[in-house]
Amino acid sequence: MSSMSTLAQKTPHVLVIGGGFAGLWATRALRRAPVRITLIDRANHHVFQPLLYQVATAGLSAPNIAAPLRHILRRQKNVTVLLGEVANIEPAAKRVRLADGRILDFDLLVLATGATHAYFGHDDWAPHAPGLKTLDDALEIRRRLLTAFERAEATDDPEERAAWLRFAIVGAGPTGVELAGTLAEIARHTLHGEFRRADPRRAEVLLLEAGPRVLPCFPEDLSERAREQLRKLGVDVRTGAPVAAIDADGATLRGANGVETRIAARTVLWAAGVAASPLARDLGATLDRAGRVRTNADLSVPEHPHVFVAGDLASIDSGGKPVPGVAPAAKQMGRHVARAILARLRGEPAPEFRYRDDGQLATIGRMAAVVEMHGVKLSGLLAWWLWLSAHVFFLIGFRNRLVVLIDWAQAYWSYQRSARIILGA
Amino acid sequence: MSSMSTLAQKTPHVLVIGGGFAGLWATRALRRAPVRITLIDRANHHVFQPLLYQVATAGLSAPNIAAPLRHILRRQKNVTVLLGEVANIEPAAKRVRLADGRILDFDLLVLATGATHAYFGHDDWAPHAPGLKTLDDALEIRRRLLTAFERAEATDDPEERAAWLRFAIVGAGPTGVELAGTLAEIARHTLHGEFRRADPRRAEVLLLEAGPRVLPCFPEDLSERAREQLRKLGVDVRTGAPVAAIDADGATLRGANGVETRIAARTVLWAAGVAASPLARDLGATLDRAGRVRTNADLSVPEHPHVFVAGDLASIDSGGKPVPGVAPAAKQMGRHVARAILARLRGEPAPEFRYRDDGQLATIGRMAAVVEMHGVKLSGLLAWWLWLSAHVFFLIGFRNRLVVLIDWAQAYWSYQRSARIILGA
Repeated sequence: MSSMSTLAQKTPHVLVIGGGFAGLWATRALRRAPVRITLIDRANHHVFQPLLYQVATAGLSAPNIAAPLRHILRRQKNVTVLLGEVANIEPAAKRVRLADGRILDFDLLVLATGATHAYFGHDDWAPHAPGLKTLDDALEIRRRLLTAFERAEATDDPEERAAWLRFAIVGAGPTGVELAGTLAEIARHTLHGEFRRADPRRAEVLLLEAGPRVLPCFPEDLSERAREQLRKLGVDVRTGAPVAAIDADGATLRGANGVETRIAARTVLWAAGVAASPLARDLGATLDRAGRVRTNADLSVPEHPHVFVAGDLASIDSGGKPVPGVAPAAKQMGRHVARAILARLRGEPAPEFRYRDDGQLATIGRMAAVVEMHGVKLSGLLAWWLWLSAHVFFLIGFRNRLVVLIDWAQAYWSYQRSARIILGA
Repeated sequence: MSSMSTLAQKTPHVLVIGGGFAGLWATRALRRAPVRITLIDRANHHVFQPLLYQVATAGLSAPNIAAPLRHILRRQKNVTVLLGEVANIEPAAKRVRLADGRILDFDLLVLATGATHAYFGHDDWAPHAPGLKTLDDALEIRRRLLTAFERAEATDDPEERAAWLRFAIVGAGPTGVELAGTLAEIARHTLHGEFRRADPRRAEVLLLEAGPRVLPCFPEDLSERAREQLRKLGVDVRTGAPVAAIDADGATLRGANGVETRIAARTVLWAAGVAASPLARDLGATLDRAGRVRTNADLSVPEHPHVFVAGDLASIDSGGKPVPGVAPAAKQMGRHVARAILARLRGEPAPEFRYRDDGQLATIGRMAAVVEMHGVKLSGLLAWWLWLSAHVFFLIGFRNRLVVLIDWAQAYWSYQRSARIILGA
């Protein structure tokens, strides 16, 4: 470390924590900056998060949607990539401590560790209802989904079989909707004819939402159309149905009248809530209700001007509205932090972050999606093609879009899914 | 089970344990037989074993070389596929007990559970030197290989860095040779330029072999050529070097003169020994030194004529020579067991198993392989093309050869590997 500290006297050391969209885009935007960058992440790879649900539902393999961070950044010589977990941040002392005891000093910090699942104070639900944030999460969900059908085939007890064929997905945001729609398609089409005792078409997919509608981030009429498309795919959508309990045998819903409904489902997936990464607390800054850091207009932290926050961890308004926790916003924030750092180094005032809202897309299943873009609203097949093109286009940035397209085309024509492999059983 | 037992009175129930080459080929060859088949395996998938080392070395993703057993067999209506682990076999009572307590009855049994790693009585070596038999093994080895380079980058201690960059592979059969050759290529080419503090080109790959030469199953001159090709790839081959100890920090070799040599390597891989699946013992049959079942000429077990053994678990001679534990032999045995069962059902004498030796191929690395085929010996580029064609051809049988070819072509031209993703860390 000694040699690095000496260097730091001359060239400012920017430490970026997190290799998601925000951290990676900030790092890349600093490629010509007179700084030395260290990018640290718990994983050795960047994940294309919008397609995680495809890995969870056995349509794509994990390497299809991920690329090693150090490979992406191999030509950017001012970056050192480190695999490691940050245990705590000391913003005043300008250093972080890693879980393995290593200490890293910094001159400027970019905190981009995003969000994690939150069970609203019910951490005991976690083992029974995994969420979807990392590739390991996706493989765990894939294992549970595929194993459930196997267990349904193995048992002779009709009630047990029904419980193995009942899937409850908690939360009807984009992730919940994607999981539910795809799972319904798998049960109806992909697995059809491959079992001798259980009938996958009898699987029930329940999408449980505490609020009044699915995809609450979309306009009401698109929510309505999404719900209709889910119904056609065979998903049982239940809105106004907050979950009161989750255990190994299913979930309990609390109805408006206080009456509880029990859902006997051996597989429950969590897509209901996220909370900011706990590292945010180390900053001693103002946090919002979700634990995100309230930042200045330039994304720096009021209490520590040499610390910037970007991505899902940042709580900021733009144009009078809160910036949503979506991939395009994270990329824009990442790039903005780089601009703010450059301005700072030049002694100029940092620009204000403004979110450019290019609309939103959510896929529901085969040929079903909703899109809202600069006032235009679409649903159904056209929206699905738009969603597909956008995702393949953005995946292009790093690798193997051809392989993903082949897997996709195969899935589309044959209803088959190329990654129905149970790992880590 | 009651309904199944009734059925069994009419249609003989063939239980196949193991969905590898032997079990799967036996099952498929019984597709028109008047039998009811249950195929049970611990995994939900068949693995194309010859390419496992590619998953371990991050060239292919796990789903690329595997397919769900029930998908492969979906149209064969006389088969029920079950996911489950057999705990023990009662050959006289004609039933098996699963690890979860379930009991399966059979009329005829095909035992095709293959081989597993063997540490020659040193089971304490297992956690420090994983072997390569399943997809989970391959992902564990991938995780260790990729993590080793990350740890080398993270440390400031030159000795520790060298130990993280030193890889010892124990056993110079085909698997050891493939792993060593590919790993040397990764260190020299794939990772080059992606690290800032460690230099992957300084990695040392040691191939440790107790016997006098590499690829002992090949003729001596091909062994010599393989050794030369390994040397060119940068592998340090040490023959006559039996391993005396393995721990978390490396391996100890015992030299011919009794002098011990210590190899400080944080990554040790085991490709030295296999032993028959322990289920063989339940048969109460004669086992050979490796624990394999001595079978009759028709692959049935002398002590239990209604039990057949096929694949790596069977110990049998053909043409005066022992049949080797290779994929083509397993497929041939699987098909033969099906023929023997059909003959048995017709009351005819079962034919004798004869192994058709179509030669052997082993790959060493990029454009390097050795081939022996009906007396013809090849090495180098031509052998490599033959190896590649044969493997893609046999993979064709079930899926995604196009995707594998694309990944391969990409790896060939760019030296890149498409699956450098650490999972399950």
